[in-house]
This record gives sequence, C-alpha cells and structure tokens, in this order.
Amino acid sequence: MYSFNNDYSEGAHPKILEAVTRTNLDQNGGYGIDGHCAHAREMIRQEIGRQDADVHFIVGGTQTNLITIGTALKPWQAVICVAQGHINVHETGAIEATGHKVLAMPGKDGKLTPDDIIQALQHHADEHMVQPKMVYISNSTEIGTQYSKTELEEIHSLCLEKNLYLFLDGARLGSALTSAVNDLTVKDIAALTDFFYIGGTKAGALFGEALIISHPDLKPDFRFMMKQRGALLAKGWLLGIQFEELFTDNLYYELASHANAMADILRKGIDDCGYSFASPSFTNQLFPIFPESVIEKLKEEFIFSIQEKGTDGHLVIRLVTSWATREDECRHFLSVLKTCSM
Amino acid sequence: MYSFNNDYSEGAHPKILEAVTRTNLDQNGGYGIDGHCAHAREMIRQEIGRQDADVHFIVGGTQTNLITIGTALKPWQAVICVAQGHINVHETGAIEATGHKVLAMPGKDGKLTPDDIIQALQHHADEHMVQPKMVYISNSTEIGTQYSKTELEEIHSLCLEKNLYLFLDGARLGSALTSAVNDLTVKDIAALTDFFYIGGTKAGALFGEALIISHPDLKPDFRFMMKQRGALLAKGWLLGIQFEELFTDNLYYELASHANAMADILRKGIDDCGYSFASPSFTNQLFPIFPESVIEKLKEEFIFSIQEKGTDGHLVIRLVTSWATREDECRHFLSVLKTCSM
Amino acid sequence: MYSFNNDYSEGAHPKILEAVTRTNLDQNGGYGIDGHCAHAREMIRQEIGRQDADVHFIVGGTQTNLITIGTALKPWQAVICVAQGHINVHETGAIEATGHKVLAMPGKDGKLTPDDIIQALQHHADEHMVQPKMVYISNSTEIGTQYSKTELEEIHSLCLEKNLYLFLDGARLGSALTSAVNDLTVKDIAALTDFFYIGGTKAGALFGEALIISHPDLKPDFRFMMKQRGALLAKGWLLGIQFEELFTDNLYYELASHANAMADILRKGIDDCGYSFASPSFTNQLFPIFPESVIEKLKEEFIFSIQEKGTDGHLVIRLVTSWATREDECRHFLSVLKTCSM
Amino acid sequence: MYSFNNDYSEGAHPKILEAVTRTNLDQNGGYGIDGHCAHAREMIRQEIGRQDADVHFIVGGTQTNLITIGTALKPWQAVICVAQGHINVHETGAIEATGHKVLAMPGKDGKLTPDDIIQALQHHADEHMVQPKMVYISNSTEIGTQYSKTELEEIHSLCLEKNLYLFLDGARLGSALTSAVNDLTVKDIAALTDFFYIGGTKAGALFGEALIISHPDLKPDFRFMMKQRGALLAKGWLLGIQFEELFTDNLYYELASHANAMADILRKGIDDCGYSFASPSFTNQLFPIFPESVIEKLKEEFIFSIQEKGTDGHLVIRLVTSWATREDECRHFLSVLKTCSM
Repeated sequence: MYSFNNDYSEGAHPKILEAVTRTNLDQNGGYGIDGHCAHAREMIRQEIGRQDADVHFIVGGTQTNLITIGTALKPWQAVICVAQGHINVHETGAIEATGHKVLAMPGKDGKLTPDDIIQALQHHADEHMVQPKMVYISNSTEIGTQYSKTELEEIHSLCLEKNLYLFLDGARLGSALTSAVNDLTVKDIAALTDFFYIGGTKAGALFGEALIISHPDLKPDFRFMMKQRGALLAKGWLLGIQFEELFTDNLYYELASHANAMADILRKGIDDCGYSFASPSFTNQLFPIFPESVIEKLKEEFIFSIQEKGTDGHLVIRLVTSWATREDECRHFLSVLKTCSM
Repeated sequence: MYSFNNDYSEGAHPKILEAVTRTNLDQNGGYGIDGHCAHAREMIRQEIGRQDADVHFIVGGTQTNLITIGTALKPWQAVICVAQGHINVHETGAIEATGHKVLAMPGKDGKLTPDDIIQALQHHADEHMVQPKMVYISNSTEIGTQYSKTELEEIHSLCLEKNLYLFLDGARLGSALTSAVNDLTVKDIAALTDFFYIGGTKAGALFGEALIISHPDLKPDFRFMMKQRGALLAKGWLLGIQFEELFTDNLYYELASHANAMADILRKGIDDCGYSFASPSFTNQLFPIFPESVIEKLKEEFIFSIQEKGTDGHLVIRLVTSWATREDECRHFLSVLKTCSM
Repeated sequence: MYSFNNDYSEGAHPKILEAVTRTNLDQNGGYGIDGHCAHAREMIRQEIGRQDADVHFIVGGTQTNLITIGTALKPWQAVICVAQGHINVHETGAIEATGHKVLAMPGKDGKLTPDDIIQALQHHADEHMVQPKMVYISNSTEIGTQYSKTELEEIHSLCLEKNLYLFLDGARLGSALTSAVNDLTVKDIAALTDFFYIGGTKAGALFGEALIISHPDLKPDFRFMMKQRGALLAKGWLLGIQFEELFTDNLYYELASHANAMADILRKGIDDCGYSFASPSFTNQLFPIFPESVIEKLKEEFIFSIQEKGTDGHLVIRLVTSWATREDECRHFLSVLKTCSM
Repeated sequence: MYSFNNDYSEGAHPKILEAVTRTNLDQNGGYGIDGHCAHAREMIRQEIGRQDADVHFIVGGTQTNLITIGTALKPWQAVICVAQGHINVHETGAIEATGHKVLAMPGKDGKLTPDDIIQALQHHADEHMVQPKMVYISNSTEIGTQYSKTELEEIHSLCLEKNLYLFLDGARLGSALTSAVNDLTVKDIAALTDFFYIGGTKAGALFGEALIISHPDLKPDFRFMMKQRGALLAKGWLLGIQFEELFTDNLYYELASHANAMADILRKGIDDCGYSFASPSFTNQLFPIFPESVIEKLKEEFIFSIQEKGTDGHLVIRLVTSWATREDECRHFLSVLKTCSM
C-alpha cells in the first residue's frame, strides 16, 4: 500500500540525516543556544531579507501556533481566521486552551478575505465581546489554495489600518511558493506579515518549524513562552542543523517543487479522467471528487483520507504529495484510476 | 428618557429590599453558609421537584456560565451552542478563557436543534479536533424565542444517547415559563437538564442566579471552583434572602408575568402599526424592524439598542421589558410610534 | 452566640442601605456606565489625589486580584508576595488559574520586605524560570500588621528600579489607615503603588471593592477583562452608590475607626489578662494565643476561628471586629475571658 | 572546552541514529499510530511488567509534565512537590500555565517525605484553599539523590490512603536505577506509581520521553490533550524507533551505567582532593563545593554551571555526565583540579 495520506509519512531528506549523523558526537549548548541554530537563523534572515527579524525553531506547527498567538494576545483578544483554518479545526482547541477565542469567518476558496476581517471587526464592538487583534492565514491553505501577492497586500494593508497583527502559518509555505500560480516570494511574505513560519516537518525535515518574528511586540522574552509550553527542545541544535541544510543550495525549494510536480502529475491525470476537484489547488494537496465505487478500488492499493461526503454517492478525498513522493506511484495511481473509471 | 434598553435598569422588587433591610444587622456566616441560603436552597428544591439537586447562588450569569462549563469539561472538551448563544457572543470569550472551545451552530429561531448537535458530533471525530461534551441552550433565548416541551425533550434524549451534558441558561427563565406560548414547567426543566439556572438579576433581584446541579458529576467540590473564580460572595446570605423572597407567594412568576404583559402591549401595538419582527418572541424581548426615520424619532424619548442593519434603510431594534416596566411608558411608546408612522 | 469570626458578618451601614432604597426605581445604565459610578469615581480620584487614575468597581476581592494580576502579567510572568498573602493561600489558586505562578517569600510579621523581592529576582534568572514582574502586598496584612510609610517607600523604590508593578490589596485598607500606629494616607498609597483597591465589603458596604489603576499599562481595555471574568455587575450602579456613601462625610474612615476601637478594647483586655499575641496587630484582626481550655469556654458564647496550633496546648485564634461590632459584646468577651482565666 | 554542563550535549547513541537512518524512507502513519510505536509500547509494557498500562511517547519532559498534570487535575486541584522540584523551579511556570498551583514543600535531600505530604494536606482544609490531589517526585532528583524502595513504598501507601495520584518524573530514571545505592527496579516503579516516565532525552536518544499511565483515570482521551498541547509529533515513529533501540539488549541501562561510572570517577577524584558535596548523589549529577579560585581555573577548560553561592568564597557547581561522557575528559578534569588545589 502506497500512502498519499499526508506529507509527513517518511523521515528526512538524506542530506539532513547525514548532517545530523556527521555532527552527532559534537557537544552543543542546549535549548537552541548553539552554533548551528545561530547559523541557521542568520541564513534565514538573509533568505527573507530582514536582518531585524528574530528567528526561533520549534518542533511542530500546533506548538508554534499556540505559542505565537498565546504570546501576542491579551486575555480578552481573539484571532480571526477562515472556517477551515488549522487553528480552528485541527488543533483540538489549542488556541482556546491558551484562553483565546478563534473567530472563524467563511472566506473564499479556503482563503480569508478583507471583507471577512471587516465583518469580524464590525461584529465585535464593545467590551461585552472579544476584541479581534490578530489575523491568522495559512499559505498554502488547508484546502491547497494559495494567496496571490495582491491578496496578501490587501490583507496586510487592512491589518495595518485596523491595528491587527498578521500571522501566516507556513507549514506548507514551500509548496505555495513553488506552485505554478504563485507570484509571492519569501521576502514578500516577510515584508507583509508580522510573524510567519517556514515549515520543515512537511518539507523534508524530521521535524521543525522556523518562526520569524518581525513585529517588535513579540520579540522580548519569547523564549520564556517557548519554555513554558514545552517547546525549547533540549537538543535544540537538531533544529538548527536541519534548517542549515534546507537553506543550503535551495534544498527547501527543490523539495517543495518535487512535491508540486508530483501533484501536477496526479492533478492532470485525474482531470484527464474527467473528474473534478473540490478546491482549485496547485499545491501539494489535491481534493478530487470520486464515486464511492472508484474510491473502494483505490483503497485496495493506496492510503488517503476521505474529506467529506459529496452528493450522489460521490466523496471528496485528499491526496498529498511530498518531497519523497515517488513518480512511479503517482503513475500507478492514475493507471488504477483509469481502470476503475472505465 | 424612558429605557427599554434591558431588564436590569432598576433595582429590586420592594419586598426584596425590605427583606435585606429587615435582616441587615443580623450576623450570618459568610460565603453562602448561612440560614437564608439553606432555606432558599430548600425552597428551590421543593419548587423544582428535585430533592437530590445541589443549589448554588452566584452573583451573575457570565460567572455562572464559566464556572459550570469550566467545571464540567476536561481540557480538550467543547460546548455546543447556537450561534447567537450568550456564551458565544456576549461574554467576551469567558468560556474560551477557561480553555474551552465554543462550537457555534446555526440553529433555528435562535434555538439549537437536534440536527445541530448531530452535525457538531459528526464534524469532531478524532483527537485532532475538540471533543463535544456539553450542550448549552438558553430559555428564553437571546432573541426572545423559547423551547417547547417537545423540543427540550428531543435535545435531552439526544444528549443522553450521545453522553453529552445538557446545560440550560435561565437568565430569563421566568419570562419563558410565563409566556403565552409556553408548555414547560420548572419541574420539566429540572427533569430534562443536567444543570440549569434560575436568573434573579433580570427577574427582580438586585443580582443573583440560582444554579441547580442535578448531574452527580458536578456536585463534588463545586464550591472550590466558585471560590477560585471569585464567585463566593462574602455576604452570601444576600443571595439567599433574595431567592427566599422570589420563591415566596410566587413572586418570581408574578414579576415575569408582568414583564411579559408589558411586552405583549408593545408587540400588539407595533403589530397594529404594521411593523414586523426579526424573531417570533412572546417573551420580554422584542425585536421589531423599523425604518431609520422612525427610530430617530423614538430615540428622542426612549432608550433602546440597535441590533442589526436590515435592508432598505430598516434596522432591527431590541425592546426589553421587566418586572419594573411601567404600562404608561409602553402606551406612550406606542403613541409616539403611531405618530411618526403616519 | 456573638461572632468575631470576620468583618463581613452583617449587612451594610444604614446610610448605604438607605441610598440603595432611595434610588431603587430610578433607571440606570448597566455594567457600571451610570451616573452614580461616574460620581463615585470622581469622589475617589479627589480623595486619593490622582486625577489621572482609572477607577473600577468590582464585587469582591478575589475577583479584583485575579483580574488585576491576570491583566498585568504576560503568560510567563509571576507575582511576588509574602507566604501568608491572600492570593497565595486563601483564593483557591485563583491566580494560578489565570496561568501565573505566585512566588511566596518568607517576609517579616506578615509583610514583604525589600530583601524578599531581591531574593525572588535573584532566584529567577533566565527563561527556564518564571519572570517576576509584580509585587503584591496587603495593607493591613493577613495577620493584622501594616506597612509604615518608610516600608512602602522602600518597596516602591525597589519596584521602580527593578521594573516591577506594585499592587496593594486594600481589602482592609481602612483599618490600616486609621490604626494607632499608621503614618500613611490614602494619597500616599495612591502615589506609591501602580494599582490598589479600597475594600468596601469589609468596611460597611454590602459588597464591592474600588480598584484604582494609576499605571498606564493596565488602563486600556480593562473592562474587557472584567467582563470576561464575570465581574461587570449588571446593576453596576449598586457599587457606585455604596462608594458615594462611603466617601461622603468620611464615613469610610469612621467605620474603620470604629472597628479599630473595638479591637483596641479586645487587645487591651486580653493583654491585661496576661495573654500574648501571635502577631503585633493594631488593626481589626487580633491573633491572641489561649490555652485550649479557655478556648473551649469562649466557644460556648462566641464564634471565631482557630488559626493554628501553638505549643503546650495553646492555640492561636483570630478575632475580627468591624464597623458593626458592638462594644458590649467586646466587654462581654473580656469578662468571659477573665472568668475562665482565673 | 569539554562540557559537563548537562546530559544532553551530544546527539544519540549510534544504534539509534542507525535505526532512524535505516528506516528513513519507509512510510509510516503519523502522530504515533505506527508499527514502531506499537512495538516500542509492547516492549515497555513487558519491561515494566504491566500489560494494563498505556504508553505514550512525548518529545520532552516539560511537555510530559504539563500534559500529565493538566489532565489529571480538576481546575482547583494542586500538585505537591519538593521545593527543588523541576516543575516548581525550572519549567517557567508550565504547571501554573495549565491553571494549577504547585505546592512546594521543604523535603529532605531533594526528596519529598511522607511528612511533607501530610503537612500539605493539613494546611489545605477547605474550599478557600486549593485541593492537593497529586504528588510529583523525580527519581533521580534534581540534586542527584534517589528514592529507596522503602521511601517510595511509604509515599505510595500514603497516596493510596489519602486518594492522591502519584506521578514520578523519570527524566533521569536510568541513572537512578543503575546507581550503586539503588534498590528499586523499573517494575517496582510501575507498581508503586500511577504515572511515570522513562526519559530518553538524557539517556541516549535524540529526544523523547515514554510516559506510562497505569491509573485508569488518565487513560481515556489522553491523546486529545497531547494534541492540544502540541505534543503529537507528526513523524511520531521517530519516538517509537528510539525506544525500540533503547529497550533492545538493555541499551537503556548500559548507557545509564556508563553515565554513572563516569560520575563515580569524578566523585571519587573530587573526594580524594578533599572537597565535599552539597548533596549526597550517586547518580550522574554531582554538586561539589569548590573555592572560587579553583572554579576560575576549571572554567578555562571545562563548561559547567554554578548552582549557588556557599559561604567563605565557596560555590556549588554542577557536573553532569551522560552516556557520551568520555573517561579521558573525567581524568583530565581531576588532574586540573589536583593542580589548582595544590
């Protein structure tokens, strides 16, 4: 059984494992105070074009989200996101567990719109309601779509005007930035957000997210919050080493491009078979709509998740590719699909 | 300017103030351990027909909600309510501040339906999502509607089947139980919920809500949670005395009936003028839809709140009556309305 | 049985009840936005000599403490207090429930010393430990002692130097300010703290504490936090009216002076009988040490609490006087004491 | 500069890295639902002699502590530990951030005593104080000492009698179980606690702690809490693989024995030089007391931390050995010590 279930089914790109192995017996300072982390921070500042940014390495995405949001907001403040937002649905209430309401808005194609933000502000007018203070977006989004430069600029301007923080969840940022329809650079992202992160877990690392803090409000004492939430990894240099490798010779982008290329093969093949998609994705997550009978056949050879029930016995499934996805398995998927579609 | 802004614009029914004054120099035990509270608890158990219930007196509704929900839920559990639910909109994230997500469902006429509950359960399937464990409803609701006995029985059965707690916010319970279309008794409420409260603040007391706990899970150590959240009133007998008065000679129901009678006058008069309402309320909150020009005129003599913008220059306002509302002012409101509607 | 158990065993001073009754049917705005609260705020600003201060009225002390501390501290910050501090012992973990550690220091005579603060800072040096950011003191203290002007000035200077907030719990401030050994004024308190409150509950009100915020950090949006924690009383003017009365014709100080005078009678009488005290109190709480046999006798006629076991069959008890304590009962207590001491 | 600063200065034992590398391109289920984790769980159940136990793998110790304690306690409950306890001092208030008070008791030699527990219970008598419900101990302790079987049995009996959970932090359990003065087995630990964990981070793994839950109260839905706190590692099999290796051929105990052997060399050498220790440790943490002049010399060649100031210009330092500590460096340390002690 080959798995298209997610983009974290395999370990790390070999270069990363080699670097971890090569340095294994070196002694390093703990908790992210070491030469590898310092170097990786500098590489990332260079890459994003912001020497003023603070960079922190955190093991996982939920941790990163809850620490960032929990630090930024005062007790009565809330974060605005789209209904499908990872923090709204798939983090078991991690944000609420820090005491903050998540204001879920309808959005469009899985993306938050300026109008969503305006609506959220208008509906929260006084001290009997939470005070919206942050906007959370994901790029690529939870349904594989992505923000254009214009869209991000509009949200950024609105956040500036309304005195809202803008936080971008980049768990799948590489896939967004290397997709066929992308017009954003990581420098744009860094310029247009207050905080964002570059996901490593889904991009070829064993684990790890690089959080970039540009806004001065969150910089002081951020490591206190990391420690309190159990997010200062004792052997923190393991995170530094991985990001050193990811940002050497464009490995990060190459791996994301591979994931997108594999998704392209699947998307075109599915399209050729006459099936449609539940969302217009050009990144590494696809949401094709198949009849149940077809899905039953595919399940005999492939692992993937069922997203939701459609109409007329159709279901939406999710296919995810990664840096490690094999082209032959994509081709095989399509041949099985063709067979059972005939 | 006469206010229809809410049902807590005046102090307390004179009988209550007299009782407070009469006992003023008596010495009582603190924090709700006193004879008045004990007596009021016994009166309420009698009234609701449950000798097994625990009764606690708490100063306000938001406190009561956050303490009850915060005690009942484990850290990863969530409470289901209708989108307009007081805990979802008007408590400044008090529930989230206890760490719990509020799952807001669309509902119908401001009331949660069994289908809402089933939807919420279906969308929360595993440990990546919060675990729904409680249903919160208000009676009367935030838009003045109320549950029928059949509706409450259906929700109760579903909660039993799905192992969900059922909590009823009775901040305006009196108005619901004495409305023209009601078919529930307070004994029904007590039989069909795990916890509910009888609101005093909006029913003629200076302040105070009587929380009834029928489900054994919440009984042990509940006073610890009350104290921790600042809800053990030092001079707790003040709460006991007020509920003693409210449940002597049916004062509680009489006061609620008066509020409903005043609302009836307004509703019929508004209806006679040809205006419609945003929600089908037979309780003490009315939501008529008026043209902006009419509202401007009304505002010269009355205080009320604007709820939302309708279409075509119309707005929905909220009119609230109480135990203290004067009939002559209701009549005067209607006469002004008639004048400016001509 | 006459109670010396606490200073909240009776209702309110008659002037307060009369004012509540007189205004009972007036319509007021809710949640503390009304003319009485506005007037009371102005009276208090005048009294404390700070026109720049914000004043909020909150029903009880635990609420006031948790809201103030919970608003002032970032998630990883802690509050320093003396081991006996009310927030450390008698609020069921209310501060920890807002997420913050209470750093309890030994103190001297129930009072925090500059050395305690320096010790706490020295032991919390990096991000693996909480960050002390606030100092909490009570005046009078939990064991009846009180700060001198020099002591408060020293703590204030140290807090300024170390960038710590200074918060004074004034649940029994009146008793401290009118005691025989006091050299502080309320203006001093206002000048030397960042936030403090003037307790009403233990000073002749039905309930209520007046929180004064001088430091600009806590001023914005403070009402959001109050609402979230259930501390915006619906009929908020009840708080305003009570403080209007307390600060008319020095009633607040008169009532506190009475409580102290009653304690003086008890203290001198106990001293005359040859008993000693566990703490050097000149306020309305006394902690005499009696043999168990004497306590058994006293318990037949009086209510009081046992604080701790001493040595040799002696126990420390607590006697509390209030604005309502009757002189004849103090005299009677002493005569019983004399009898059973012979 | 050679570091004795901690036991997490190097990567992982080579067998662990090899296993991670060997399986790198295998596809695995996410979040700990995979064959390696299942196998490692089974191996641990076998090792500890409890087939009924649940086993969860978590990246770090602070996470493990906060999740376990946060799950076990109701909002008003508290955990008792010794003053030096990791949760009390070195986790930046992580437990308080879950809402719970840590009740720090004096203990003896860094160990909690039955008398500490009894004292804590006696001082928390009613709902105005937190309710102690859990005992937290570390073995080995934060100052290198360890519990004897008798000591653990006494605490266990007392917890049973008083209805308290007993939680053992085993971040350095291997070092305790293989020390010269140990008389406990891991089966004893499993039999005498409700929850405990076997630390991997300080025992030769890249990261990871294996939490064992024996008490049925914490078993249901524990993964919800893990996810909410960001502790479900996406590539969870990395944890499983590491514990598979640690519990193959007694690697876990061998590595801990090596750390202890290196500490023995240091301890004996320091003792031979005539220096004393601040705590009687036979595990991998030593706390020798040196004159400042000696420390200055040692700092030229070694990295270690200064724990506290002693008297007469002496300081307590901490030396930590690990599975990776080199014997030649221990010898070198002693030769430098000898030189500068002459």
